[in-house]
Amino acid sequence: MAFNVTILGCSSALPTSKRNPTAQVLNVFERFFLIDCGEGTQIQLRKFKFKLSRINHIFISHLHGDHYFGLFGLLSSYALMGRKNDIHIYADAQIEEIINFVLKNIIDNVDFKVIVHELNNKSPEIIYEDSHITIKSFPLKHRINTCGFLFAEKPKTRNIKKEIISEYKLSIKDIISIKDGNDYISELNEIIPNSHLTIAAPAPLSYAYCSDTMFKEENASYFPNVNLLFHESTFLDIHADRANDTYHSTAKQAAQTAKIANANKLILGHYSARYKDLTPILEEAQEIFQNTVLGLDGLTVEIE
Amino acid sequence: MAFNVTILGCSSALPTSKRNPTAQVLNVFERFFLIDCGEGTQIQLRKFKFKLSRINHIFISHLHGDHYFGLFGLLSSYALMGRKNDIHIYADAQIEEIINFVLKNIIDNVDFKVIVHELNNKSPEIIYEDSHITIKSFPLKHRINTCGFLFAEKPKTRNIKKEIISEYKLSIKDIISIKDGNDYISELNEIIPNSHLTIAAPAPLSYAYCSDTMFKEENASYFPNVNLLFHESTFLDIHADRANDTYHSTAKQAAQTAKIANANKLILGHYSARYKDLTPILEEAQEIFQNTVLGLDGLTVEIE
Repeated sequence: MAFNVTILGCSSALPTSKRNPTAQVLNVFERFFLIDCGEGTQIQLRKFKFKLSRINHIFISHLHGDHYFGLFGLLSSYALMGRKNDIHIYADAQIEEIINFVLKNIIDNVDFKVIVHELNNKSPEIIYEDSHITIKSFPLKHRINTCGFLFAEKPKTRNIKKEIISEYKLSIKDIISIKDGNDYISELNEIIPNSHLTIAAPAPLSYAYCSDTMFKEENASYFPNVNLLFHESTFLDIHADRANDTYHSTAKQAAQTAKIANANKLILGHYSARYKDLTPILEEAQEIFQNTVLGLDGLTVEIE
Repeated sequence: MAFNVTILGCSSALPTSKRNPTAQVLNVFERFFLIDCGEGTQIQLRKFKFKLSRINHIFISHLHGDHYFGLFGLLSSYALMGRKNDIHIYADAQIEEIINFVLKNIIDNVDFKVIVHELNNKSPEIIYEDSHITIKSFPLKHRINTCGFLFAEKPKTRNIKKEIISEYKLSIKDIISIKDGNDYISELNEIIPNSHLTIAAPAPLSYAYCSDTMFKEENASYFPNVNLLFHESTFLDIHADRANDTYHSTAKQAAQTAKIANANKLILGHYSARYKDLTPILEEAQEIFQNTVLGLDGLTVEIE
């Protein structure tokens, strides 16, 4: 069962011939969540073999075009494909007017509902929950209202040790009770503590998405001990002034955020078109946070 | 001096992993004209090494998304790049409302003018003219208002034979007069006819763009003897009913149009995503019109 993220586009505002505008697909045990939807996202989805119909939830960090201009083509293709299922879009409130205009004037034959969930840009908030994961938005610091997202697996119940089942000849009723956290009273009236009967489930995994944002120490507090952090690194430290002016981060600052959050691994992305060779960006981050990879179009990274 | 067309996208409404939505660049002696602008056009332009800043005129055949959703990203990139020059968009009148909405609500810091030229969907009309070419729109038959475009080189004046200049010791004034079509009176008072002094310039070249349209014999009358014809071929003849229902053409009909127009060469394109192998499309057209090529993303075809 996979829990991984695939980068569909790693460019910042101006795409290049090899870097598409921002979009990612998160596969949470075969549930597919689209994070941002820059121009060309539907083409990238096809290129990297994702079925468009598997996506029901789209998370838009902010309303700069390079993060959502792919919505128009995607919604248009859904209409052509005869989609019936609702599509949920999580974004700043202003998207409502844009979606309404598009559905009224631009796309015909829409037989599905587009349900907009307005993001709160002030404080962290749970915006989605199912039996497997919780998705939270949290505020970032950019030129316009912007949210990051934390996708956190729910804690799993402890697993019964296999040998215990035969040792105590447990019934299904017993097993359910033990899984619920209860101790077990044996035929000899011994109390067997739950901790002896079970082993801890693997720790829940999490993925955090931070784009676009300037460096702010507080950001890291929204995803403590995250397994995998995607953090924008639009600029190198030598262009820190430019990062500051445009409310973006440097590779160094992305690494500092990963370090403060005690993340396990960092993926970089959202690179300025001025950098043809991205090696200096990777090296700058690795000096501070070793377990860093360059996010590139088509790369899949496991969350583990 | 090049006169050629490069296909940026050859898919119909649903793109595939290898075929982008419709767009083409026409290079008319280093003037670059963009014809349609499907999603991802700015990325394809970069991929095939065209400078975005060289484009000042965009011709949109009709307002189905696969022919213009790339405008938003392109205009947005122009704003980010600090463009100052006007950009001219030739399209159906309804685009005015869309462009106004986009400029008001979606794209910031636009320091250039977007000048919309409304297409007449009733009869052929000259929509652009400069010292080298004339561009005409003409009505096609699709589900909504749709125009084709004819890019025709202007006839050139006859060229003076090189040997004549020294033979008659012509002055610059004489040369200009002869270039204007006049005969020459020699020192011996002989009248030397212009046809003896000059040779005909190469015949003017032309390119016609027909997408989207159903087959209509009248279409061919808008581009008689065209050098290169691009004609949509969304379907194979076995799906002619589907072509008819959706107001599209088959490869056979594209070839018939090229034949009736007495075109020199035909490029096909706008293929339905259902066809993975395009060979049958090419073969179907070539049975009727031999000098046919498959338009594919990145292909450049000379107009000659």
